[in-house]
Amino acid sequence: MSNAMQDKKRPFKGYQATHFRFETDEDGRVATITLDRPQKKNPLTFESYEELGDLFRALHKASDVRAVVITGAEDNFSSGGDVFDIIEPLTNMKMPDLLAFTRMTGDLVRQIRACPQPIIAAVDGICAGAGAILAMAADYRLATPEAKTAFLFTRVGLAGADMGACGILPRIIGQGRAAELLFTGRVLTATEGHAWGFYNALHERAALLGEAQDFARSLADGPWFAHSMTKKMLDQEWSMGIEEIIESEAQAQAICMVTGDFRRAFDAFAAKSRPVFEGN
Amino acid sequence: MSNAMQDKKRPFKGYQATHFRFETDEDGRVATITLDRPQKKNPLTFESYEELGDLFRALHKASDVRAVVITGAEDNFSSGGDVFDIIEPLTNMKMPDLLAFTRMTGDLVRQIRACPQPIIAAVDGICAGAGAILAMAADYRLATPEAKTAFLFTRVGLAGADMGACGILPRIIGQGRAAELLFTGRVLTATEGHAWGFYNALHERAALLGEAQDFARSLADGPWFAHSMTKKMLDQEWSMGIEEIIESEAQAQAICMVTGDFRRAFDAFAAKSRPVFEGN
Amino acid sequence: MSNAMQDKKRPFKGYQATHFRFETDEDGRVATITLDRPQKKNPLTFESYEELGDLFRALHKASDVRAVVITGAEDNFSSGGDVFDIIEPLTNMKMPDLLAFTRMTGDLVRQIRACPQPIIAAVDGICAGAGAILAMAADYRLATPEAKTAFLFTRVGLAGADMGACGILPRIIGQGRAAELLFTGRVLTATEGHAWGFYNALHERAALLGEAQDFARSLADGPWFAHSMTKKMLDQEWSMGIEEIIESEAQAQAICMVTGDFRRAFDAFAAKSRPVFEGN
Repeated sequence: MSNAMQDKKRPFKGYQATHFRFETDEDGRVATITLDRPQKKNPLTFESYEELGDLFRALHKASDVRAVVITGAEDNFSSGGDVFDIIEPLTNMKMPDLLAFTRMTGDLVRQIRACPQPIIAAVDGICAGAGAILAMAADYRLATPEAKTAFLFTRVGLAGADMGACGILPRIIGQGRAAELLFTGRVLTATEGHAWGFYNALHERAALLGEAQDFARSLADGPWFAHSMTKKMLDQEWSMGIEEIIESEAQAQAICMVTGDFRRAFDAFAAKSRPVFEGN
Repeated sequence: MSNAMQDKKRPFKGYQATHFRFETDEDGRVATITLDRPQKKNPLTFESYEELGDLFRALHKASDVRAVVITGAEDNFSSGGDVFDIIEPLTNMKMPDLLAFTRMTGDLVRQIRACPQPIIAAVDGICAGAGAILAMAADYRLATPEAKTAFLFTRVGLAGADMGACGILPRIIGQGRAAELLFTGRVLTATEGHAWGFYNALHERAALLGEAQDFARSLADGPWFAHSMTKKMLDQEWSMGIEEIIESEAQAQAICMVTGDFRRAFDAFAAKSRPVFEGN
Repeated sequence: MSNAMQDKKRPFKGYQATHFRFETDEDGRVATITLDRPQKKNPLTFESYEELGDLFRALHKASDVRAVVITGAEDNFSSGGDVFDIIEPLTNMKMPDLLAFTRMTGDLVRQIRACPQPIIAAVDGICAGAGAILAMAADYRLATPEAKTAFLFTRVGLAGADMGACGILPRIIGQGRAAELLFTGRVLTATEGHAWGFYNALHERAALLGEAQDFARSLADGPWFAHSMTKKMLDQEWSMGIEEIIESEAQAQAICMVTGDFRRAFDAFAAKSRPVFEGN
């Protein structure tokens, strides 16, 4: 990488967020985003939507962060867009402003999907509306038995087509179950969510965040350049035919095979030691 | 809407079908289609295929119907295309007539998917061939423990590629399970169907139709314009990439945000009352 | 079919493979491929990759084989690409050779998907790396309770984007579960694999191969031309919209309706006898 390109990279350790908490491990590899307005169950606001989207976009250039945990404060994930802070103003907007809003919220999902880091959602308690979307947009989802996830757009007279839900949710849990959740806005329990493949695993409340961070750490200490390629291709191949899938992966994996991490993994295997990955 | 457009709308309450039963609630919001030739387990015929397709196409212009239940008379859903009424004539047709037939049956699925109303299948007993396809094409599926669903085209020497099954079924239950059902034509039991996400819920025989109609009613009394957008986008986004998904939903949801139903839902929330939706 | 075309067809009964075992039933209808280097848990090598791809390509022209079972010798399916035989040489190759390699391995999946025969994977013990991909690429998967399947590319510093996994695996088990397996390389147990729809059924070790061959036989004695159309359309329609799905199946099924097998099935039904299919 040229110095000019390299210069643009910067560490996020110590970054101060305004509308949520942002913390990292000692070495900055694992970042934890905490939605933190617990008295209102961590709703999203115009400002936090935008700051979250900006942060995930900026993480493309992180020199330290390799995996991100997103969670909520005090036993709830997020209640989504606040009815009085968000819904009421929307009911008074003209079309260009409405479309600017729906594009801004959609952009948050786009940035979560586009950033190279795997995103781990740690879900407890209420996970509703845009909160459910945040969980859906993650790469890996953990929950407590108390997690209550609801795509409740229909409850405010809107479509389930919000921030990508009609396209993404069916690919996770299937078309029939996604249709039910989006038409009804009903609560998906933790048990159902696990059985349906929405949640990858369930953990008790006291263990949830630690499990999410341990998982993030294991990815962050792994071949993270290759992980970023896995993430990219999982999205990229959704709408491809089989021929394009095969050729795309031939190229993607050949790219990974010229990284030092591939050699490092082999050398460690041959030496019966543990590989130390450098992401290049 | 201009008067000219408005004029084309018409109520379906009181509509008399020839080859199946068609009934509605008192206010016409929920329609129930009953395949009704119970002595032969409610088979489909050339005539009932065509009339069903025509009806679902016409429902685009319904001024009353907002949700549709489809079911079968006397403890069976449908035995599909009758072997002597349908299969035998087909074995004697030339290609243009065969293609006209497969396009007509395919058109039934197209109209079920294209009409704005959510379709609820209530499945009991035999649900085979084109009957299984009808259930698959619905938005929401309920069944009794006695439901026996079989995509049995292979049993008459044909492909599983019938009326969209190779494209739609994998999106509901996954590629591996869909392949098994389509290659073998074996019965999918109600328990499996529920575990695999084909059926959304199971109910005892005596409760099935009531549950289906109650569910349809809840959708019909909900924000049905928004529901029609949810249905449209669930289909529309199948073959889109993530970028197109995000932008499509930004537009779709902005459309819903200029409806009065969005305001009605907010006003009701603020007033702690129940919203009355008008679909505009 | 012209004689020239017909001439190109040839039987595979008696075909001798070099890098694996190839056997058929007495009449050649069911072929069984056995990866057979049990002392190393049946790894793949440059040579066996290529010979397998060539074989599946050649099976397009088989005059006898109608279904294929793929399995491994002595209680393991396959350990995948051998670390010293494959990984080490790759770490020393230049890009054009790497891309030639990833295209060759991808071509094996392409040929498994493109050949007209349904492929049945019978999985016991270790099923790792390219071995897991072989199982994934099959149409139907059986396993023993001891099967341990791992997409472990990440363990050698590579992406999960190998031979089509990021595109194909999510369509079988959903996006969230596929992401987990590809990011972590962890073992998918037989029980999980069955619950998630990766395995169609589980059988005890002693019964596995017999069950796989019986299933293959039932397909081979069925309407195998129609089966080849089912297989083709299951792949072909992945990236189609609903309109294209409907029209594609109208054409595909009309093709099957002019086969003699369709008539044979009807005649047998009318005569209450068992149809004898000829694949034309």
